Amino acid sequence: MEAVIWKRPCVLALKSCGPFATCGSRGTFGFRNGGRAPQRTFILRVINSTGSGAVVARPSSARKYKKSEGVDRKLAALRQLFHKPGLQMDAYIIPSQDPHQSEFIAECFMRRAFISGFTGSAGTAVVTKDKASLWTDGRYFLQAENQLGPDWMLMRAGTPGVPTVSEWLTDVLSPGSKVGIDPFLFSSDAAEELKHTLSTKDHKLIYVYDGNLVDEIWKEDRPKPPAAPVRVHDIKYAGLDVSSKISSLRQNLVEAGATSIVISMLDEIAWLLNLRGNDVAHSPVAYAYLIVELDSTTLFIDPSKITPEVTVHLRNSNVTVKPYESLLLEVERLANCGAKLWLDTSCTNVAIVDAFHSACNKYFENLPKRSKQKSIKERNKLLNAKSIDSEMEGPLAIHKASPVAIAKAIKNGAELDGMRQAHLRDAAALAEFWTWLETKVVQDKTTFTEVEVADKLLEFRSKQAGFLDTSFDTISGSGANGAIIHYRAEPDTCDIVDDKKLYLLDSGGQYVDGTTDVTRTVHLGEPSSREMECFTRVLQGHIALDQAIFPENTPGFVLDVLARSSLWKIGLDYCHGTGHGVGASLNVHEGPQGISYRYENMTGLQEGMIVSNEPGYYEDRSFGIRIENLVIVRDMETANRFGGNSYLGFERLTFVPIQSKLLDLSLMSPAEIEWLNNYHSEVWEKVSPLVQGDVHEWLWKNTRPVPVHSTA
Amino acid sequence: MEAVIWKRPCVLALKSCGPFATCGSRGTFGFRNGGRAPQRTFILRVINSTGSGAVVARPSSARKYKKSEGVDRKLAALRQLFHKPGLQMDAYIIPSQDPHQSEFIAECFMRRAFISGFTGSAGTAVVTKDKASLWTDGRYFLQAENQLGPDWMLMRAGTPGVPTVSEWLTDVLSPGSKVGIDPFLFSSDAAEELKHTLSTKDHKLIYVYDGNLVDEIWKEDRPKPPAAPVRVHDIKYAGLDVSSKISSLRQNLVEAGATSIVISMLDEIAWLLNLRGNDVAHSPVAYAYLIVELDSTTLFIDPSKITPEVTVHLRNSNVTVKPYESLLLEVERLANCGAKLWLDTSCTNVAIVDAFHSACNKYFENLPKRSKQKSIKERNKLLNAKSIDSEMEGPLAIHKASPVAIAKAIKNGAELDGMRQAHLRDAAALAEFWTWLETKVVQDKTTFTEVEVADKLLEFRSKQAGFLDTSFDTISGSGANGAIIHYRAEPDTCDIVDDKKLYLLDSGGQYVDGTTDVTRTVHLGEPSSREMECFTRVLQGHIALDQAIFPENTPGFVLDVLARSSLWKIGLDYCHGTGHGVGASLNVHEGPQGISYRYENMTGLQEGMIVSNEPGYYEDRSFGIRIENLVIVRDMETANRFGGNSYLGFERLTFVPIQSKLLDLSLMSPAEIEWLNNYHSEVWEKVSPLVQGDVHEWLWKNTRPVPVHSTA
Repeated sequence: MEAVIWKRPCVLALKSCGPFATCGSRGTFGFRNGGRAPQRTFILRVINSTGSGAVVARPSSARKYKKSEGVDRKLAALRQLFHKPGLQMDAYIIPSQDPHQSEFIAECFMRRAFISGFTGSAGTAVVTKDKASLWTDGRYFLQAENQLGPDWMLMRAGTPGVPTVSEWLTDVLSPGSKVGIDPFLFSSDAAEELKHTLSTKDHKLIYVYDGNLVDEIWKEDRPKPPAAPVRVHDIKYAGLDVSSKISSLRQNLVEAGATSIVISMLDEIAWLLNLRGNDVAHSPVAYAYLIVELDSTTLFIDPSKITPEVTVHLRNSNVTVKPYESLLLEVERLANCGAKLWLDTSCTNVAIVDAFHSACNKYFENLPKRSKQKSIKERNKLLNAKSIDSEMEGPLAIHKASPVAIAKAIKNGAELDGMRQAHLRDAAALAEFWTWLETKVVQDKTTFTEVEVADKLLEFRSKQAGFLDTSFDTISGSGANGAIIHYRAEPDTCDIVDDKKLYLLDSGGQYVDGTTDVTRTVHLGEPSSREMECFTRVLQGHIALDQAIFPENTPGFVLDVLARSSLWKIGLDYCHGTGHGVGASLNVHEGPQGISYRYENMTGLQEGMIVSNEPGYYEDRSFGIRIENLVIVRDMETANRFGGNSYLGFERLTFVPIQSKLLDLSLMSPAEIEWLNNYHSEVWEKVSPLVQGDVHEWLWKNTRPVPVHSTA
Repeated sequence: MEAVIWKRPCVLALKSCGPFATCGSRGTFGFRNGGRAPQRTFILRVINSTGSGAVVARPSSARKYKKSEGVDRKLAALRQLFHKPGLQMDAYIIPSQDPHQSEFIAECFMRRAFISGFTGSAGTAVVTKDKASLWTDGRYFLQAENQLGPDWMLMRAGTPGVPTVSEWLTDVLSPGSKVGIDPFLFSSDAAEELKHTLSTKDHKLIYVYDGNLVDEIWKEDRPKPPAAPVRVHDIKYAGLDVSSKISSLRQNLVEAGATSIVISMLDEIAWLLNLRGNDVAHSPVAYAYLIVELDSTTLFIDPSKITPEVTVHLRNSNVTVKPYESLLLEVERLANCGAKLWLDTSCTNVAIVDAFHSACNKYFENLPKRSKQKSIKERNKLLNAKSIDSEMEGPLAIHKASPVAIAKAIKNGAELDGMRQAHLRDAAALAEFWTWLETKVVQDKTTFTEVEVADKLLEFRSKQAGFLDTSFDTISGSGANGAIIHYRAEPDTCDIVDDKKLYLLDSGGQYVDGTTDVTRTVHLGEPSSREMECFTRVLQGHIALDQAIFPENTPGFVLDVLARSSLWKIGLDYCHGTGHGVGASLNVHEGPQGISYRYENMTGLQEGMIVSNEPGYYEDRSFGIRIENLVIVRDMETANRFGGNSYLGFERLTFVPIQSKLLDLSLMSPAEIEWLNNYHSEVWEKVSPLVQGDVHEWLWKNTRPVPVHSTA
């Protein structure tokens, strides 16, 4: 899946990142991808498919004259709530988030889409007493223009002259205004940053605890929170039992001087407890929080999701279950007991962080006078301290990145084996799929819509053992649509897949034993020399990164240049990162590691991590190319170990043929051709036992070596 | 010259950087290299030259028993000065710096060497009432052990458990002590950082303005400040007249809201005024300060250095001359006149910055009450402001990196032509030298010491038109000495150059029209397969970087991996940066750009910059390899310009054969071999017209193509 990752979710993402930002130490970002939920309609249109087709946006001036059909009733209702007893707000911000900063969210959390009508995956709505604005990025300008009602103003984030949310608010509100947010939907860091910016004009940020205001309008139409049962993730795939994982986590707590931690990232909870859920599409997670103390573990979840099997599993791991809604009470209890609570403020919502801080304040206020000397102010100094005396009296918040992220990122043997197995079955499904497509289009001269092709792919994947779901919305982009990095084909508007143009297919599956993510670009007819040159250079970048060997703990961004150099040679580039982490039968995007041209993520690559290798090239209104494999970071056991370092490299997980006919072999070095031939020989060896008949034949044809020429 | 650069000079360098740190936005670093001045004696010894030779350091415990020969008289004298009227100090820090944070300093500034006896290029001496400690890095542990008297304690910086200067001071001094420094020898940033650390234990940092205390002991033995005449740098080499340069600088001032600037970096002054000096070895600069105001320019320099020719030159450029010592008075005058003064606090000494701030304070204290409302505190907020209203009443300090650094780094056409010409003559000298060495060693079976070989090289260079000086101390390292990255051969102790081992030669020249810096490694007998493998991989890294094409403004560190990848493949690496900036007939090390594995320097590479390309590999106690060319950053006029960017690459400046017999061709790709053959063909074409006879023949032989094999 394209490595497009947002530094921060919500408001601040629109401020600090372009649409293709890839970055961040884990915990400081939420991952974003293209649209996801079935009710969302994409309006991107390609007028025709002859190559001159253009993505047409109405000029923004046109919007001015769109006729108002009376005051937007949802907006009016929301504004009425500004005057609820005890509130008296001047503005309300509605972000895209759920309370866990998830990439894929349940429908009941799609409040921004409900209030604004704009259904894209990224955006922030802000409503004042007389204005309503929606920020989104370049991917969604057209869609937002079409979906927003006349009372909404579209803010094209990242366009020169367009203010950020907080700039706009400080500008349109009279000084000293009150801006409300739902504190469950903002990470503590994001809320603090927002509060700080607003304070420069004496505005106040208000946390509205008493229910989300949009929900009050949505009422009974609001989808119910998901209640899918949770299942146990088999130890043969998980590799490590819950007690061992919790025990390591407790070791982390002790080392940091903490006595407890709140985990709010859904994939971290699923990984720690060897559980999988089914609350959102694509990600096998369940809505929950987890508190781990030195002597107890409590899972906060809707009890109806807990099957008898899970009850036994949790009991065996000494995990207690409490209702999802009781978390804040428990956080307050921790403060009252003097807990030293580890909070990752980059991903924990401000409702939780604030609840703990408030309870700490109360704790100290209630102390006899002499104990107050250890004032809260003094304690705040310790927030980011390196070592803390856990014997110190009274509660304390310790703000640090969650230790679960890195533990989860470094896969154990069983997880790696599961990933290997899942990838082989996925490769078999893809071989069947490509055989089908090629036969239909080339031999039978049939064409299909992009959506039909994606549906057929799902059909083939579904037949594989252990298949659960797609790991993200398939990106099925023919011709010019391939150049839209976050393209999502819609039945009514999508293009056809034929033998006239390049076809980019980025897809993945969730299996019981692993998660896949693979992109191939093919031409089922005669590619142009331009397409071949670009495809060859993308593959050269892919090969250079695949072959890299580097000292342990090298940050991913150091390697990014290897994937771009071949394109740079002729003045080409691509506007997205080169690699993202992938969970083991978990989220298709995970941190903390990454390979990106942004230089902020200093997380070193370590043995056992999984990353994608996906350089691309996109020619606007013409074609898109991406070649993506997943790889495991492995110790390469080099002849030397300069500096006492291990030297790491990559083991390939993905075994799907790369279309040789798209290559201009004269541009490739003998070593690059050798790489391709070796890769195809490996594909044949591993995947041919899993397929039969014409698929077997297709695989044979598509894994034959290409000739190595004598000079490069 | 090896790209070894210190992040910060003085005390703080020892805290924050290892010996091989390469980094820093220009202005935040001083460059450091191996020892320089004739009076310094290096004690590094290689016991024998058979390959088993080891660099032997006495165990540190041995030092304890070194017999004291009575109290060190210099120390006693210095300590007496602690009690001078009005001082009452508890410690005094003696750094290696001159007042301009120069890489090469005049002898009169070698106070740390005088007081401690340790003559290495990097080190900090700290004297308390009863202790004396000297910090230096791994390059100098042996030398310092031998040179320090019994009353000195050697602090091996970078070794686990060794405190930094400020850690040690806060530890050994009783709380509330006073630590003195000469404010001319510390950059403002360094002094502020020191002050901050000391304040954590209530120590006070005192600026001793009333003369350097070491000078009071040194007395008449202290070398006189250099007084070499300044010369005009011909406009045909400079390319741009002084008025144009000053005019651009004034444009920078206006844009920043500044009305004046103090320039204290000697190469910036030389570049701005098209002047060259002769005050220190290797760098053609003169001790001076410069103040540029919107309507006047003042050079602060010893007037005896100004020849009649220079007088005319300066008069034509409207530059006034004042005595070097009158700078602080002028800075105070600026404050009194309400100047908005641009100060680069990373390289401007704290005496200057402090003088301006104090004068500002006085200015506001003397104002009538109502004007004081614009308090100094408020103004301090503006120190790093982006835009400043220059009409604002009263003086203001604007702390920003000097704009001259980047202007100087981007060479104009005349400077580039001068560099090209100087490099051709330098290449001819090197061809003559290598012919001589090879003939003597291989044919005549003669051997020479490392010093004799370096002297001979100087002899050949000196014969070239426009030669002025070496651009740094030649690094002439045979066998194991080649692995000592900062090696400097000394007549009494150095090894011989023969046909038994690798020989690394890193050297450069200052010419009227340009500055050179080139490293070649050769074997005059039979290299081992290990040496060949390593040499080949270093060359592959050199080629990969040389061939890179990249978008304009790519920071150098992005490209660093290209130079290391081939070594990483077999688990090897090198502990220094890959490239540094080089001045045009100026300092051999200059910023702000660099190519390093440290990721701090975000300066983008731009057309017209010059950088070195010098990967290496060093096998302790065995051999060292480095291959260094200088290159110009050039627009490559690629077929595409994705993102509207120019795509840049490198034009080679250095044309010296690379020894083909050291190559394992089986490891090289056809493209790499083609690069080598093209390079040698270019060397032959450009340099052969400049040499005759046996040198012509040597050049022919050493630029013949090697065969391209059929597979890589």
